[in-house]
Amino acid sequence: MEAPTDRPHVVIIGSGFGGLFAARALAGDDVAITMIAATSHHLFQPLLYQVATGILSQGEIAPSTREVLAGQRNVSVVLGEVTGIDLDARTVTAEVLDDTFTTAYDQLIVAAGAAQSWFGHDEFAEFAPGMKTIDDALELRGRIFGAYELAEVAAREGRTEDLAGLMTFVVVGAGPTGVEMAGQLVELSKRTLKHDFRFIHPGDARIILLDAGRAVLGSFHPSLQAKTKAALEELGVQVRLGAMVTGVDETGITVTEKHPDGSTSEERITAVTKVWAAGVAASPLAKQLAGQVGLDVDRSGRIPVQPDLSLPGHPEVHVIGDMASLDKLPGVAQVAIQGARHAAAEIRAGLAGEPTGARFTYHDKGSMATISRFAAIAEIGRIRLTGFIAWLAWLAVHLVYIIGFKSRLTTLISWLVSFVGRGRAERTITSQQVFGRRAIQRLGRLDSER
Amino acid sequence: MEAPTDRPHVVIIGSGFGGLFAARALAGDDVAITMIAATSHHLFQPLLYQVATGILSQGEIAPSTREVLAGQRNVSVVLGEVTGIDLDARTVTAEVLDDTFTTAYDQLIVAAGAAQSWFGHDEFAEFAPGMKTIDDALELRGRIFGAYELAEVAAREGRTEDLAGLMTFVVVGAGPTGVEMAGQLVELSKRTLKHDFRFIHPGDARIILLDAGRAVLGSFHPSLQAKTKAALEELGVQVRLGAMVTGVDETGITVTEKHPDGSTSEERITAVTKVWAAGVAASPLAKQLAGQVGLDVDRSGRIPVQPDLSLPGHPEVHVIGDMASLDKLPGVAQVAIQGARHAAAEIRAGLAGEPTGARFTYHDKGSMATISRFAAIAEIGRIRLTGFIAWLAWLAVHLVYIIGFKSRLTTLISWLVSFVGRGRAERTITSQQVFGRRAIQRLGRLDSER
Repeated sequence: MEAPTDRPHVVIIGSGFGGLFAARALAGDDVAITMIAATSHHLFQPLLYQVATGILSQGEIAPSTREVLAGQRNVSVVLGEVTGIDLDARTVTAEVLDDTFTTAYDQLIVAAGAAQSWFGHDEFAEFAPGMKTIDDALELRGRIFGAYELAEVAAREGRTEDLAGLMTFVVVGAGPTGVEMAGQLVELSKRTLKHDFRFIHPGDARIILLDAGRAVLGSFHPSLQAKTKAALEELGVQVRLGAMVTGVDETGITVTEKHPDGSTSEERITAVTKVWAAGVAASPLAKQLAGQVGLDVDRSGRIPVQPDLSLPGHPEVHVIGDMASLDKLPGVAQVAIQGARHAAAEIRAGLAGEPTGARFTYHDKGSMATISRFAAIAEIGRIRLTGFIAWLAWLAVHLVYIIGFKSRLTTLISWLVSFVGRGRAERTITSQQVFGRRAIQRLGRLDSER
Repeated sequence: MEAPTDRPHVVIIGSGFGGLFAARALAGDDVAITMIAATSHHLFQPLLYQVATGILSQGEIAPSTREVLAGQRNVSVVLGEVTGIDLDARTVTAEVLDDTFTTAYDQLIVAAGAAQSWFGHDEFAEFAPGMKTIDDALELRGRIFGAYELAEVAAREGRTEDLAGLMTFVVVGAGPTGVEMAGQLVELSKRTLKHDFRFIHPGDARIILLDAGRAVLGSFHPSLQAKTKAALEELGVQVRLGAMVTGVDETGITVTEKHPDGSTSEERITAVTKVWAAGVAASPLAKQLAGQVGLDVDRSGRIPVQPDLSLPGHPEVHVIGDMASLDKLPGVAQVAIQGARHAAAEIRAGLAGEPTGARFTYHDKGSMATISRFAAIAEIGRIRLTGFIAWLAWLAVHLVYIIGFKSRLTTLISWLVSFVGRGRAERTITSQQVFGRRAIQRLGRLDSER
């Protein structure tokens, strides 16, 4: 274990919105900050779907955390997966490759976020990858563009029986990510790939958006839900609500639909490409912490925190973002960002000998989702925007939160090219991804590859 | 097997410089072209080192072949690994995933290129990845940036014994790729990462460039070789010539040095990160073709072709680029590009009933290599350029050959940011790469990952 520092040591777990904004909020304070994260990048999750559909490169939404924080001299970054927190000893243990790293903290901010959840059906993951990491996005990119490649060969050889499955894309979960994914799959098939093939018509692709609930964008106002559903159907997306996924395999998906009259029916949809944008589960660290303070995590694995975001009996530990459960706060970036600033303020107050324990109040800055190019919906307090104006708002907000001048500039160019034009600059399929790995295995080249 | 077309069917194997320029050269001809390639992208190999060192995204140097050729209606693209060519039946067989695809040809252009060669030591590949594919570049990116991450943890914990190996980078092969890689590793350590760490000084990294030969850039004029060696040493690169690699493992590399006096000495260099930029071997298709016409391939696995680039006894088959051996032509893009145009002209002449069999003459447009930002060397006929002027020439030539307006623009921005500034926008480490996979395995998360 490393030597303690002379200044108060603040350990931050996670490099997402919560972790990064917590570190930045403490930039001016006389503390030594150590950020420990399992990835070396800060991921701008809301745009992951654009990496999956070839609009953006991974670097544009996943800048190096160290590069972002390079100028902040009071923070040091450690690449490592936190495996243990000892609240009594006040230590954090992380692992990276063969190394185990343990450090003591005076103040701890836990912001390890949430991962995809297949609702207890992890066996679905192989066939319906999630949308939570850069690897997920590259994996889906390979599968989506790969499906069209296979369809072209099938059509050319007259294997029409394979075509339907290859040209059907199912998105599970009609939250913002699912809606944006479905919308982009339409853009791909109807615009981007329009002239790319000779034996198939990409525009014929079937895009299905499933949700077990009764509405798309469940967290939005009913009028926006209706407008979004109508807009998606206008684009040609088959929106299937009240449809629960009961099976997923390599060639398709099984859904059980609950009908308004209470009856149910089961259906098998043949689809090679499935995207899972349904559930999330908080980092297992939440359960580990809960156990140490005698609490239970909620259904999503989140730990119930005090009104000031601290752990009961541990004012030196704050849990923020997707790992924390408080007042039914939604799992969005703004909750993590504002929670980070609150935790930072609490730590600052404590170090100054001022009273702490201030209640965290969330200021809802509104939420938005894109449906397709030039079309989005936004809800800011009582204001509800749709269509092009909402899309402009989406554009502005996202450009502001993208980190780094270069990424902002190239992202803007990528958007111009993709939305005004029809190009997709980032369609590369890496053979590291499952699609490619399977191909390589078939070709018996895996060994020679490495 | 698919139905033949009414127009003469030209099959092109490969989507590299040879294959792509052959297809384009036939854009105006009344033929049906089928391009079969193992990747869905055209790879601009000369800039692969910039993907490996975080300057460019894979999409900027690997545009979708289909997108590039979308407007050329007489060509269709098939993703598939060609496994067999039958010269008598005039058929080509390819595989992609479960599918086998066979097509007949009237004219065949074979441009499958070359892969990395470890000179019979494929066991080196795992520890010293090559520099031939997008996956190689992403793998190396993960290892290079990952090594600094591990070094920071080691330094922080006082494990100084691990530091030396983590901070040592060995590049094997002092051709243009090796020189450019070594130069960029210096840029990374001395500029890009300068302020990113708190416990290590990236500038202390040891960068070693090895070559079994007696000079760097063996194919260039001695004066440029000397200037390049001096420039690299000025940057702090340890250039070791006459050094043959006799062993590579996870933590280091063994070299046997032949000294001018004829004596030899063996040395073990502790280095976690190794880059293999040494040898190439032509696609196995060359050997397969050679066998069918009773020829032997050369040391690099290339097939000796007729002066018109055709196969003896098979005027309907042309072999171009890195697969073909003729007049000691170098394995560079220009040879493939000009060979492609020659093959296309031959096919055109044949279809017009004009005489064929014209001798291929290579016009050397010169060659160049960058050493570091603002410094390069170039050799155009008798003209030899060095330093900034050569670098400007390099910049111009490469921008011209990068495909697509968007990529040209964003690449230029990326270069401005990286060379005038010090940013690297594409540092993302994917956990699909070996570095990440090993980390995940240690963390026992491989299953949950997929």
